[in-house]
Amino acid sequence: MGRVVGVGAEVVTFREGDHAGVGCMVDSCGECENCLADREQNCLNGTTFTYNSPDKVSGGVTYGGYSKRIVVKEDFALRIPPGVDLPGFAPLLCAGITTFSPINHRDLKPGERFGVIGMGGLGHMAVKLAAAKGAEVVVFTTSEGKIADAGAFGTAEAYLWSDEAAMARNRASFDLMVSTVPVACPMQLFLNLLKLDKTLVNVGALFPIEGAQGMLMGFGRQSLAGSMIGGIAESRAVIDFAAHHGIAATYELITPDQISAACEKVVNKEARYRYVIDMTRA
Amino acid sequence: MGRVVGVGAEVVTFREGDHAGVGCMVDSCGECENCLADREQNCLNGTTFTYNSPDKVSGGVTYGGYSKRIVVKEDFALRIPPGVDLPGFAPLLCAGITTFSPINHRDLKPGERFGVIGMGGLGHMAVKLAAAKGAEVVVFTTSEGKIADAGAFGTAEAYLWSDEAAMARNRASFDLMVSTVPVACPMQLFLNLLKLDKTLVNVGALFPIEGAQGMLMGFGRQSLAGSMIGGIAESRAVIDFAAHHGIAATYELITPDQISAACEKVVNKEARYRYVIDMTRA
Repeated sequence: MGRVVGVGAEVVTFREGDHAGVGCMVDSCGECENCLADREQNCLNGTTFTYNSPDKVSGGVTYGGYSKRIVVKEDFALRIPPGVDLPGFAPLLCAGITTFSPINHRDLKPGERFGVIGMGGLGHMAVKLAAAKGAEVVVFTTSEGKIADAGAFGTAEAYLWSDEAAMARNRASFDLMVSTVPVACPMQLFLNLLKLDKTLVNVGALFPIEGAQGMLMGFGRQSLAGSMIGGIAESRAVIDFAAHHGIAATYELITPDQISAACEKVVNKEARYRYVIDMTRA
Repeated sequence: MGRVVGVGAEVVTFREGDHAGVGCMVDSCGECENCLADREQNCLNGTTFTYNSPDKVSGGVTYGGYSKRIVVKEDFALRIPPGVDLPGFAPLLCAGITTFSPINHRDLKPGERFGVIGMGGLGHMAVKLAAAKGAEVVVFTTSEGKIADAGAFGTAEAYLWSDEAAMARNRASFDLMVSTVPVACPMQLFLNLLKLDKTLVNVGALFPIEGAQGMLMGFGRQSLAGSMIGGIAESRAVIDFAAHHGIAATYELITPDQISAACEKVVNKEARYRYVIDMTRA
């Protein structure tokens, strides 16, 4: 997220001085059926991600936003409205699009019940975005201190997973859920909260998904789905949606020398709710 | 599966002497949204299953097909066409409907690629039903001896899961898969074979589902779904479909005193492919 300092001769959507953002990917083939369907994140020939991805143009790997400057194809740069708070908008291109994509793809409707499992960097964006869509948002957290924040972000209800009575009351009541918990968590506990034929989308756990039980999933024909960031068109949509609704991340701006301390706070569940690194102070 | 020996005064769809079948359930509330949507297997007030289910009418538990006679509500008895082979049709009401339901619900189309994981009692019915739908059926088995049978049942291809080259060639090629393996199996191995946005339906493993990986599921936005038998209308549909296409289970008829030996063969993967118990010889 920053200011355009130069454009190529054929660039038409940016001029020097514009605000621009680059999300989690910087390139894709542009020709496979997924790229043609605005799903560059699922490029069949391999998306080039912004961080630590083999760079098909320059060789080596990509270094992402941990840089003072980035050179990127026009199609992978996103226009950022001039009046918004840049650090608050930066997480839209990662946590925002990651949670907006399932909401959008699965067509969450006003009044539907939407569950958010885990309320950290991703989860708090899920809450704000779904609440702005008019959904009835319910948070499930392990941090008692986040319950009050959840209300401020727009949830109707927030519970500790350990609250067995609340979990029982919420059974078979959700139209859509997202799990933003970054490690394996007890999925069946949340699958049980879905209405019949509904889906829990995992955007948090990157490695094993644990706890799903065949018979219980069969009783309600529920699904557990994967999802990963979102396409470029969807990324433009989340920026427009957030600007329109006045949504931004709740963040703390840090300098690069504070990264390690911030990382530790993330691990200790003390982050509230996203760290944004000010690279102008590198 | 048997012959009607008596009907109540208000029964209109059966007469003494008709062939009738009873599937995995004998009652449901008939009033909840799922019952009204022909999904009695997901009755929100609790389906009464045919075996070992609390019996809301008589008290105690249900004893299912291990009986010489069964008394059942008209709505839960299924008409069986007079000319079919009864033992070959009996498994349609369990293995048949269980595999037909996801094929039907997810609208498998002619020419689509359909994967069947595990080819036992359920899997061999999935193959026959999907092949009759015109799908391109591919089996994944652990039993080398089943590969030739798979061809006879209508598959286009059949592989051992352990064949890494075959698994790699089949990557991202399936429109729908069902896993009929009755225990946890390496789900991600098969999720990787789905095209983008497609679903693997688990109808086999009743307890833990293992091996799914969040990031890999995210790369292709695949889903893993539960399913359990099917509703009464769908059960009627599978009987009609099988009669029309001349499909029946491949079975061995046994007497009740052979049940324990048959059970052992199931465990040892020697069943080919379904045991049907002749209760007239009890």
